[in-house]
Amino acid sequence: MTALKNDLILRALRREPVDRTPVWIMRQAGRYLPEYLKTRAEAGSFMNLCQTPELACEVTLQPLRRFALDAAIIFSDILTIPDAMGLGLSFAAGEGPRFERPVQSAGDIRKLPRPDVGESLAYVMDAVSLTRRELAGKVPLIGFSGSPWTLATYMIEGGSSKTFGKAKKLIYQEPAVAHELLAKLADTVTDYLNAQIEAGAQAVQIFDTWGGALSAPAYREFSLAYMERIVSGLQREYEGQPVPVILFSKGCNTQLEALAATGCDALGVDWTITLEEARDRVGERVALQGNLDPAILLADPDVIRREVGSTLASFGPGTGHVFNLGHGITPDVNPDHLAALVHAVREQSPAFHP
Amino acid sequence: MTALKNDLILRALRREPVDRTPVWIMRQAGRYLPEYLKTRAEAGSFMNLCQTPELACEVTLQPLRRFALDAAIIFSDILTIPDAMGLGLSFAAGEGPRFERPVQSAGDIRKLPRPDVGESLAYVMDAVSLTRRELAGKVPLIGFSGSPWTLATYMIEGGSSKTFGKAKKLIYQEPAVAHELLAKLADTVTDYLNAQIEAGAQAVQIFDTWGGALSAPAYREFSLAYMERIVSGLQREYEGQPVPVILFSKGCNTQLEALAATGCDALGVDWTITLEEARDRVGERVALQGNLDPAILLADPDVIRREVGSTLASFGPGTGHVFNLGHGITPDVNPDHLAALVHAVREQSPAFHP
Repeated sequence: MTALKNDLILRALRREPVDRTPVWIMRQAGRYLPEYLKTRAEAGSFMNLCQTPELACEVTLQPLRRFALDAAIIFSDILTIPDAMGLGLSFAAGEGPRFERPVQSAGDIRKLPRPDVGESLAYVMDAVSLTRRELAGKVPLIGFSGSPWTLATYMIEGGSSKTFGKAKKLIYQEPAVAHELLAKLADTVTDYLNAQIEAGAQAVQIFDTWGGALSAPAYREFSLAYMERIVSGLQREYEGQPVPVILFSKGCNTQLEALAATGCDALGVDWTITLEEARDRVGERVALQGNLDPAILLADPDVIRREVGSTLASFGPGTGHVFNLGHGITPDVNPDHLAALVHAVREQSPAFHP
Repeated sequence: MTALKNDLILRALRREPVDRTPVWIMRQAGRYLPEYLKTRAEAGSFMNLCQTPELACEVTLQPLRRFALDAAIIFSDILTIPDAMGLGLSFAAGEGPRFERPVQSAGDIRKLPRPDVGESLAYVMDAVSLTRRELAGKVPLIGFSGSPWTLATYMIEGGSSKTFGKAKKLIYQEPAVAHELLAKLADTVTDYLNAQIEAGAQAVQIFDTWGGALSAPAYREFSLAYMERIVSGLQREYEGQPVPVILFSKGCNTQLEALAATGCDALGVDWTITLEEARDRVGERVALQGNLDPAILLADPDVIRREVGSTLASFGPGTGHVFNLGHGITPDVNPDHLAALVHAVREQSPAFHP
């Protein structure tokens, strides 16, 4: 493997000194980019885009050609694992994900296989290896997975949900069955992230998109506990290099201390808390990643520059900050506005690393 | 006016001693009740149901005939104020609210009238007076309004939204214009709640449903500040009786201390924080209302009884707790399950008021 020319993100995630704040953007390979829309159209379907390593690699690299980002994140979907378990994932045009065979009973859960991810998700590992080669050490490549709870909500609901009634009914009515599902998912996610690391991912992030839908005690029992199980099962060093682990539990800012105690390296933070408060609460235990409201990218570049400055100032001086949005970039953003953001982070952040 | 036979909620909201924890349920007059669906069908449209005082009174009283609830809340919609400002509210079947004339520019905002609510929203005050008479002192009647920020999101987006891109663009790009809109809304909400109090509402609640979509600094500037303005403009006593004010900012649990400092009597709390933690943080300043996850009503009555017990125990001994869900009851709930909840609160709560 080629030596890494820019390891700023890996350093910041481990709270080592850096000379400026590194930046990447959740969903940076996404629908706001015309070149992404073009490749997606050529792929025919979203699933084909995910499952063809050359196309997944191409869209992963696209934002790096436009913007001076400090990391790539492998293009994929968070629902590859349930698909590999046989649920039959599809995406109808203009709609969210759908499972042909959602999990509807304890029997369904008992029968779910723990897939051999190296085989059934080989297309992801191939995309990771190919992208790592193509990056040629320019910036690190981040791998990712959905959290067990987040995957379980889609598997039980059969798709997206507003209230998660079926998934929550399961955890309250049949907690032992829910734990069986979540344990199986946690072990599979562990395999999956370890396989991504072996294929070339230099850091990994777990997206707990729906952790914030749970009550505080249910969150700890049904989401946090399984992320902790994954963190302790991951290869934290590969080929002599540390592999940082980022947890992002959206809407769970009252749980930051517990998240910081899982053994992860960094926490993704949404925009509903200031980085100053988050840093006060987690202290020296973890780095923080975030947390600009993605909607700020709809405003003009001068507003974006001002808000980038506020975000950097909120974290304050010192290392341990990876600049990002507090959630994924939305399709209605003008790419030039993201360019303004990245430029502003590069320009303004050295002052915070004296 | 008839003397009040059950003032438990008014006492608990003001942190006065009670012998059991009072309970009401957000959206207790709603689609989970077959009798509500029948009246709504007879009304022809949702707007007609809201705008006909006899029908609004009827659905307000329906849940009290089934369940031993300690308060009624006037049946209405949070978007009556923008409708009175001329935006043209409608509800298409199976869809959310729509405004025919959303607010699209600084000029639109400047032209918005501050409506005479006694005139343009007379149908709400008539429903309040009629319901107060019909209740005949059985339990108190709660009035309500949406918060200025929550109303503004619908007015700017033209309806519901996932990301509030237009509303957020306005606050970041043209904050002075946003403040003009929010100030106008705050003054109108103040008029509206005072008119409800004069018509017979014995407590009022402000629903800040979308406060949690904002960053912490934006929340304080664009939502909290205007709720504070309303609180300080309300009649806190009417005909010799104190009128408690409840603020419910969903998804804003990192802001509880600031909410408690607005001068309100009580805070609605969603289920993502324990009442124990919320009480630790706000201390003796305010009462707390909540916070069972509405999804627990989908589980069996034995689970509901157990979770009611946990919620009561989380608040702990002493006054200052009004039992409620952490958000509105959903249409898929079996009414017998709500009966189990209300019964469990009545049965288990006296132990917490020794």
